Amino acid sequence: MSDIADLLLHARWVVPVEPHGTTLEHHTVAVRDGRILALLPQEEARRLYPQVQAVELPHHVLFPGFVNLHVHAAMALMRGIADDLPLMRWLQEAIWPTEGRHVSPAFVRDGTLLAAAEMLRGGITTCNDMYFYPEAAAQAFDEAGMRAVLGTVVLAFPTPYASDADDYLRKGLAVRDQWRGHPRIDFTLAPHAPYTVDDDTLKRVAALAAEIETPIHIHIHETVQEVTDSITQHGVRPLTRLERLGLLGANFIGVHAVHLDETEIALLAHHGCAVAHCPTSNMKLASGAAPAAALRAAGVTVGLGTDGAASNNRMDMFAEMRHASLLAKVTSGDATALPASEVLRMATLEGARALGMAERIGSIEPGKQADLCAVALDTPETRPCFDPVSHLVYVAGREHVSHVWVDGEARLDKGKSLLQTSDKELLRLAAVWQTKLVN
Amino acid sequence: MSDIADLLLHARWVVPVEPHGTTLEHHTVAVRDGRILALLPQEEARRLYPQVQAVELPHHVLFPGFVNLHVHAAMALMRGIADDLPLMRWLQEAIWPTEGRHVSPAFVRDGTLLAAAEMLRGGITTCNDMYFYPEAAAQAFDEAGMRAVLGTVVLAFPTPYASDADDYLRKGLAVRDQWRGHPRIDFTLAPHAPYTVDDDTLKRVAALAAEIETPIHIHIHETVQEVTDSITQHGVRPLTRLERLGLLGANFIGVHAVHLDETEIALLAHHGCAVAHCPTSNMKLASGAAPAAALRAAGVTVGLGTDGAASNNRMDMFAEMRHASLLAKVTSGDATALPASEVLRMATLEGARALGMAERIGSIEPGKQADLCAVALDTPETRPCFDPVSHLVYVAGREHVSHVWVDGEARLDKGKSLLQTSDKELLRLAAVWQTKLVN
Repeated sequence: MSDIADLLLHARWVVPVEPHGTTLEHHTVAVRDGRILALLPQEEARRLYPQVQAVELPHHVLFPGFVNLHVHAAMALMRGIADDLPLMRWLQEAIWPTEGRHVSPAFVRDGTLLAAAEMLRGGITTCNDMYFYPEAAAQAFDEAGMRAVLGTVVLAFPTPYASDADDYLRKGLAVRDQWRGHPRIDFTLAPHAPYTVDDDTLKRVAALAAEIETPIHIHIHETVQEVTDSITQHGVRPLTRLERLGLLGANFIGVHAVHLDETEIALLAHHGCAVAHCPTSNMKLASGAAPAAALRAAGVTVGLGTDGAASNNRMDMFAEMRHASLLAKVTSGDATALPASEVLRMATLEGARALGMAERIGSIEPGKQADLCAVALDTPETRPCFDPVSHLVYVAGREHVSHVWVDGEARLDKGKSLLQTSDKELLRLAAVWQTKLVN
Repeated sequence: MSDIADLLLHARWVVPVEPHGTTLEHHTVAVRDGRILALLPQEEARRLYPQVQAVELPHHVLFPGFVNLHVHAAMALMRGIADDLPLMRWLQEAIWPTEGRHVSPAFVRDGTLLAAAEMLRGGITTCNDMYFYPEAAAQAFDEAGMRAVLGTVVLAFPTPYASDADDYLRKGLAVRDQWRGHPRIDFTLAPHAPYTVDDDTLKRVAALAAEIETPIHIHIHETVQEVTDSITQHGVRPLTRLERLGLLGANFIGVHAVHLDETEIALLAHHGCAVAHCPTSNMKLASGAAPAAALRAAGVTVGLGTDGAASNNRMDMFAEMRHASLLAKVTSGDATALPASEVLRMATLEGARALGMAERIGSIEPGKQADLCAVALDTPETRPCFDPVSHLVYVAGREHVSHVWVDGEARLDKGKSLLQTSDKELLRLAAVWQTKLVN
């Protein structure tokens, strides 16, 4: 019988995200073969599936695993290496020199293992990564049992990873071919930013993305300087240039999108583009506040991203939800801006939609993969609880994540890591790289 | 011999806060009779005090317990009862009606117990509270073993707690007399806000505060509406009115201080006033961004406050430090604004200074009370660690707090609560009140 569940999750509250604004009490998520089979009242589930393995979540809220729409996972190894600097100084004085000296397949593998552990333990089941040596990242994400979308990075200048645009693309596509068909590993094309990639390469990326049907993942309008430099060099603002080069479309994920005028918001909406809003990184680097609520109102898909640990300095979607809401409220003067249920949707289903994966993940609906997170609300600092969705955004943190499943397989159980790589080994790897990086 | 320690804390890093910007490696805090006796290298401490009880903190950073400069502790029982509303609607539609129906000595005692547990577990060893029934709050803080400064609330209108200004003052002063000499309980006069207290009462508060040498704790310039209403009703902005009434001085703690012009920043500096900056509450209620960096630059003492759990919705000084820094950066466009070491100072010593307690708490200096917090940095999400002060602000959270001491007595030990009231009992109290409040 194909409709027998093989795992039942009995939760005090289930927030399926779709339909929007719904919280179900005493419900059960039934899983079969890694997919969500049904969402039904606990009593009914216990009657229908009496012999099935069950997890009791009596004071927990169960919701879709987070989709981290923008991260540089391996930069976990540079967590806190330089703070309190603006973007260009931070890149030019701290990050790029360190990367130039140290980034290698081993760096990326170890850094990504560390990042995957951090993300999974914080309820992030999918991330959209952008970094060098995606083959090493893919291996690490696979080992960790995390779902990841890897960017084929493209830059106009040589790095230890690749010599020119051809080389970046060739290497990235080779990795993509190698991992084709993997159930948890997907790919994007990831030209770094308008200011680091030339016109010809951007055109090739657009054509290639259409041909192989893949998203384009690119930093865009992060700082005022980026916009003014583009006007100087290209006569137009970056988004206009990208539109002319054919990059804007339903497969476009623009990261940051801080400095946008109304025309540009309409442009992104017109082309069906998505935005990865990274409020913490934008605040920390003093880049500005992206018009996330206005983008949402215009119909743009807006997901949330943590950015890399070197500019955040954590990969924590609870913090991003909270910061997205708080930043929208304080910059608009409107306390109703981006309420809790909306930022939860951005952190899950909207991120999945941006990646073209909304049919597979991002909500608790039958047929989708069982990528799930449970948060325990039975501690003094989480009580009372009048509304579990409000608590997910304004009260809870990663420390309250008790269980995480990817494809129905537990990665975290009652707060205990089930990852292949032990915490002890992760700390050893971090220590080895810390020593190398400062010497 | 009076110079023998009775407790040694051997830490990987000690951040004493004073002198500013210092991080000591492999140092020891020696405690005697609840006070800090010495801060010295571990090797020397082990040699000097070979037989003394010691706590090993091999991958921890030890720093002064946080001073939460503004909280309504008992409002923990209203955590998340109403979100995504602006201040006046939030007060008038949700908070004040609930308070009117439910606030009682039992409510305050139970709510304060819950809040004290949350605060202590998050490294907050002192708070500056403002709420009804301070006698019930004092009892709860005493039971929890927390240091607290309690506001004698004064309002122009009757509440179940008191009938008029006389009644508020009489009741508050009686409680103060009753607790006089208690080593961990102090008092302020706390007229709620310029818009809820009349001129005569404010004048009496100013005179009384001078007479009994106590701080004045008052909400001030929180919203634009407060400022414009004051101009309509009194012909001047609230701070000018308070100055005329004689309230501004070195004992003045203005909470929020969001909407200030340059004259007002200078006015606060001129009078030696302090500000309790509550970035999360200000963002969540869309009140605005206080000019915290400009106030600091002008010489105003600026501490950090969580505000009550009904408008935050957590009492978490790690979050306040982070939000203070992030908000200062994004609103100024200056990524160097309020760097990590500065917000840590605001969250500890500056808060103590605002309360007139800088001789007793707020830094790790010989002679001060041993109010201390240890954070463990040995988890995947806190590694690598290039700078422990950066990590305290941008990486760590309450979940990393391993040990907390007040007057040298442990309240948290390896993450385990040592409070008189068990977690189970706290959850029971929260559940009882949650049921009452929604019915």
